[in-house]
Amino acid sequence: MGGRFLKAGMVRSDGRLLRELSWPTRLEQGCQGVVQQVGMAAAELLRLEGRRWEEVAGVGVGVPGTVRLPEGEVLFAPNLGWTEVPFLAALRRELPVPVAVDNDAHVAALGEYWVGAGQGYRTVLMLTLGTGVGSAFLVEGKVHRGRSGLGSELGHMTVDPNGPRCGCGNRGCLEAFLGAGALEARARELLKSGKPSRLVPEGDWGIKEVMALAGEGDPVAAEVVAGLVGYLAMGLANAVVLVDPEVIIIGGGVAAAAGVFLEELRRETARRAAFMGYPSPLIVTAALGNRAGILGAAYLVSRGAGEGT
Amino acid sequence: MGGRFLKAGMVRSDGRLLRELSWPTRLEQGCQGVVQQVGMAAAELLRLEGRRWEEVAGVGVGVPGTVRLPEGEVLFAPNLGWTEVPFLAALRRELPVPVAVDNDAHVAALGEYWVGAGQGYRTVLMLTLGTGVGSAFLVEGKVHRGRSGLGSELGHMTVDPNGPRCGCGNRGCLEAFLGAGALEARARELLKSGKPSRLVPEGDWGIKEVMALAGEGDPVAAEVVAGLVGYLAMGLANAVVLVDPEVIIIGGGVAAAAGVFLEELRRETARRAAFMGYPSPLIVTAALGNRAGILGAAYLVSRGAGEGT
Repeated sequence: MGGRFLKAGMVRSDGRLLRELSWPTRLEQGCQGVVQQVGMAAAELLRLEGRRWEEVAGVGVGVPGTVRLPEGEVLFAPNLGWTEVPFLAALRRELPVPVAVDNDAHVAALGEYWVGAGQGYRTVLMLTLGTGVGSAFLVEGKVHRGRSGLGSELGHMTVDPNGPRCGCGNRGCLEAFLGAGALEARARELLKSGKPSRLVPEGDWGIKEVMALAGEGDPVAAEVVAGLVGYLAMGLANAVVLVDPEVIIIGGGVAAAAGVFLEELRRETARRAAFMGYPSPLIVTAALGNRAGILGAAYLVSRGAGEGT
Repeated sequence: MGGRFLKAGMVRSDGRLLRELSWPTRLEQGCQGVVQQVGMAAAELLRLEGRRWEEVAGVGVGVPGTVRLPEGEVLFAPNLGWTEVPFLAALRRELPVPVAVDNDAHVAALGEYWVGAGQGYRTVLMLTLGTGVGSAFLVEGKVHRGRSGLGSELGHMTVDPNGPRCGCGNRGCLEAFLGAGALEARARELLKSGKPSRLVPEGDWGIKEVMALAGEGDPVAAEVVAGLVGYLAMGLANAVVLVDPEVIIIGGGVAAAAGVFLEELRRETARRAAFMGYPSPLIVTAALGNRAGILGAAYLVSRGAGEGT
């Protein structure tokens, strides 16, 4: 689920997505409205596929916010306007099958682990670049949750104490450099400084247009992408010196255009991590696009993958 | 083993250190000289304790450098002047019992896990603050080694892209702020700027004296420690948003004076990590002092604790 749309799918035990549906998220009635919507989405999928609840292993839900397990409490989800919402408990009352919830970036990483770019790797670090910067660290196919049960939030790793203020209150977090809004603001700043570009200063473009123009050599767009690569490489190298994951997956909306920067990102991350013999990290783009969330949510509930370290 | 001394001990299976000896490290004959010295140290311990090789489970060695496992190759150990030395293989030829080697910070963390400040925690992050900044991330009592087999080197996490140049070639690594030399240089810089202090600009003091004076409110020393706390908290909060360890242990020479800054470090790290509901991380000082290395080396070889994720 997202702040704008609830996307639901029926997934077979072998990882095949049978059917996918989408509705505007019914946020106006708070948690209970969403819970009922999840129930109706499930019922509709069952009806369309001619299945019964008895055939369903469970319902998994990815939430755009911080989720504490095992309670399944949504601590903070700014796009939903939720704070400390006992979402899992409410879903359990609504649905006649096992239910699991987790952060959307964690769930997307599980999808990539199951049937995407993370298959077969014992340790996976995934970053999702979109409006915000989400992350998940998987060990043996489970989300590493840590002491708090929250799992990772690499978007809030500080990489410059003098950097821009982040939504979290600190300065110079990865998200303050790599979030879509930050990248767009950087482009506008460069336009103001008079750097040539096909972007119109007051035009209605977004990060997608910037990425596309970067591929065509537009000076402003190229400089935005160079900045993205620099900070992202710093963040990834910082993760390497702590956990050195077997694979690093770049996903999310911005990653759809990763072809523009992937080679340079690999080079720069490898250069940073090379100092004492670390070999080049393996960095790949996500394979499942926006299906990762639905597939990962299915994996979460069917394999108990939310109960990590 | 260190660049100056080889310290050896006999450790009982219950973690009791029976006897400890020390010699100047015999570096002039390269790897083979050290290997023979390890053999002689073991023989001397056996003789003094009235034991035979048949009673020994193994010999563990901690090395001040990057060690790749399972090969046991010392990739880079600047204090020994070693690069790509097949140390484990050489030790195995010399000794009639199982042998294990690992990085000294990793070994110290294992010691703390076994009989020190890390007992009973599923995940442990230890930082050793000394000439350099070493680290280890333990999961279930084993060193998390990662894709490369090197384990963690959190001293080379970048926290300021415009920070001072680090020995590794990058800028603004934790070690470039927190290494003993960096802290002393900061004190000298503050003295030059005319800030009052009981430290004499050209005097023969080191980081120990700075830490002692900070406890007495000396302005220069207090500012050095405030800087240490700021960057260390940033590094620890960055580790929390990735792996959120159950306990964080601060060890090494500088940590002996951690009483001066521990409360402020806890406060600042908690403040940084609090943004989305992360509870205050648990930060403690090492319990074993310089015995952690010997105890951890014994644990390493007797429990196979080097073969982590």
